[in-house]
Amino acid sequence: MAPDAAGKGVLLKVDPIAEAFRAEVKDGLAALRHRTPTLIGILATNASPSRFYADFTRKQCEGLGVRFILKEVGSAVKQNEGEEARSDGDGVEEVIIEANEDDNVDGIMVYYPIFGGQQDHYLQQIVSPLKDVEGLHSKFHYNLYHNIRFITPASLASTIPSSKVTQPIIDDIPPPGTVKSIIPCTPLGVVKCLEYIGVYNNILTYGDRAYGKTVTVINRSEVVGRPLAALLANDGARVFSADIDSIQEYTKRPRFSNPTSARQYLPHHTSHLCTLSLEECLAISDVVISAVPSASYKVKTEWLKEGCICVNVAADKNFEKDVRDKASIYIPAVGKVTILMLLRNLLRLSHYNDVSAPSGSEDIIPAQ
Amino acid sequence: MAPDAAGKGVLLKVDPIAEAFRAEVKDGLAALRHRTPTLIGILATNASPSRFYADFTRKQCEGLGVRFILKEVGSAVKQNEGEEARSDGDGVEEVIIEANEDDNVDGIMVYYPIFGGQQDHYLQQIVSPLKDVEGLHSKFHYNLYHNIRFITPASLASTIPSSKVTQPIIDDIPPPGTVKSIIPCTPLGVVKCLEYIGVYNNILTYGDRAYGKTVTVINRSEVVGRPLAALLANDGARVFSADIDSIQEYTKRPRFSNPTSARQYLPHHTSHLCTLSLEECLAISDVVISAVPSASYKVKTEWLKEGCICVNVAADKNFEKDVRDKASIYIPAVGKVTILMLLRNLLRLSHYNDVSAPSGSEDIIPAQ
Repeated sequence: MAPDAAGKGVLLKVDPIAEAFRAEVKDGLAALRHRTPTLIGILATNASPSRFYADFTRKQCEGLGVRFILKEVGSAVKQNEGEEARSDGDGVEEVIIEANEDDNVDGIMVYYPIFGGQQDHYLQQIVSPLKDVEGLHSKFHYNLYHNIRFITPASLASTIPSSKVTQPIIDDIPPPGTVKSIIPCTPLGVVKCLEYIGVYNNILTYGDRAYGKTVTVINRSEVVGRPLAALLANDGARVFSADIDSIQEYTKRPRFSNPTSARQYLPHHTSHLCTLSLEECLAISDVVISAVPSASYKVKTEWLKEGCICVNVAADKNFEKDVRDKASIYIPAVGKVTILMLLRNLLRLSHYNDVSAPSGSEDIIPAQ
Repeated sequence: MAPDAAGKGVLLKVDPIAEAFRAEVKDGLAALRHRTPTLIGILATNASPSRFYADFTRKQCEGLGVRFILKEVGSAVKQNEGEEARSDGDGVEEVIIEANEDDNVDGIMVYYPIFGGQQDHYLQQIVSPLKDVEGLHSKFHYNLYHNIRFITPASLASTIPSSKVTQPIIDDIPPPGTVKSIIPCTPLGVVKCLEYIGVYNNILTYGDRAYGKTVTVINRSEVVGRPLAALLANDGARVFSADIDSIQEYTKRPRFSNPTSARQYLPHHTSHLCTLSLEECLAISDVVISAVPSASYKVKTEWLKEGCICVNVAADKNFEKDVRDKASIYIPAVGKVTILMLLRNLLRLSHYNDVSAPSGSEDIIPAQ
């Protein structure tokens, strides 16, 4: 993994990171003893990336000993000759509802996009938060944005957002009676990669370990870009969240110093419009993460800060071929870590569903 | 309201429809006696349509005796000289959370768009369903799509969608222990206009009064187009839901006759891809409703069926100037009815919040 002779940056495949979490998930499964958690995958289109991801999920589950059941509906169903064609998403909502209500199902994952846009967002709200291994329900986004890390399992069943003032975060051990909230698995996978490569500094206190780092996150979708930017800002980083029409700055450091307050930072990040251009943001960014779902979009290598870290989260390559001429580390894909975050969420949720009295068995919840 | 000498269709302003509901809301308020419901409006941008709508809400509330409080945040706040500019949506989430938790607040309405797209959808999920007078929470969409008309007030607080088989709908009186679900106010306003002009036929049984009517709804957003199409299909109509990239057909009549089933229609609509073009749909549509947020989009008059009914729901005019050459009735705007649906929802929700035991006081819930 050393830079090559020409002084190019490291091309970092995430396999070793995934391996560490695979071991963690294995231990978690072993601790469950006789109970094998069941994950339902729902494939509702004939799009090959979705089919590919479903096969990949199955392989990962089988390798670890998780029961995986794929439900095919809509255009994912093989059509017999003379049969009327089914369209994308036909019957998907019914399958989600069945899985919500099936006590033998611990987790549900849906292969998006199906209808695209708002209708997919609607489906994400229909999956029970108690089985939402992807962490796509707005409850989890709410907790993430507000830096609410510890919750009662019962709170997942309530539509009314909690505004309980976040306790000061001292460490990652949930206080008695609480468990960890579920974090959307793609943003969480990116954070785990950044921890691995030292962007998070363990010498700093838990909850603020990205302090001192400037990060640009390109794309502000509710599924990846915005939660990722918020997560990093809640961990102390200064984050530029760039989208087509605007750049916002996320930070939990107060913008204007307040000499009467002893608190060094806010309980969670706030955002404000940023007047810098993307070029100016990149010029001062230690980390650049791109998640633009477009084959033609490329981050300009010449705009990058010398020695920065670049992470590509999109299915397409968002960085130019010569990215390592400037980047010290380049991570081309994070999917192998993402799937393990999902399985880790599955373990947690199956535990949250098991415990009626949440005390005494916290130990089998894998640490975050 | 008679067609003019040239045989043109009727241009129907909705004022008399609004007037009928104004009287209903007034009666509902009188029944509450000493309690004046409070509606919070949240304005988070400096967009003039939003400001205009906020002023309009205030006027309606004041005219009827509802307490209206406008909370201005972000770029809606007047900026003093030398002050840093606030941007669209700054602080909007905090104001929503405060209003959720304020026992003196009965209803919350937010003037969209703020951030646009997914982030606005996120905000819609943050408003407590118990105060969501606009009916934008996915819970209400879920109930609407599944034709669940009667609910327990307690169910509004649960994130887990109910799949209880819908009882056969006999009339619009909620069975004991239940109340009516909240319907998103724009789609509901359109339905009320269609009832008024006789598209719904009172001779038919409740729950199927749009049977026999073919309707095209142009635009399939989750806020207006899709819920409206579903509402009409659940009421018996055959509906074409047209969007930029596809046309779907919504109907609760089974597509393939099933001689072994005595049931004439499904408990709620299903949808399938339609192979007709928009032109072909319009040629057979008794009612055409357009809700395209674009000044340049126009439904072609020449494509309309002679004598059809046209309803414009968009802020822009989606029909051509000569629409009444073909349409028998043209409704250019429904906003005045929409706001009364919102106030009617406010009355209902303040009642749902009041009743701990829901029996015995159903009479003060205005009938739908």
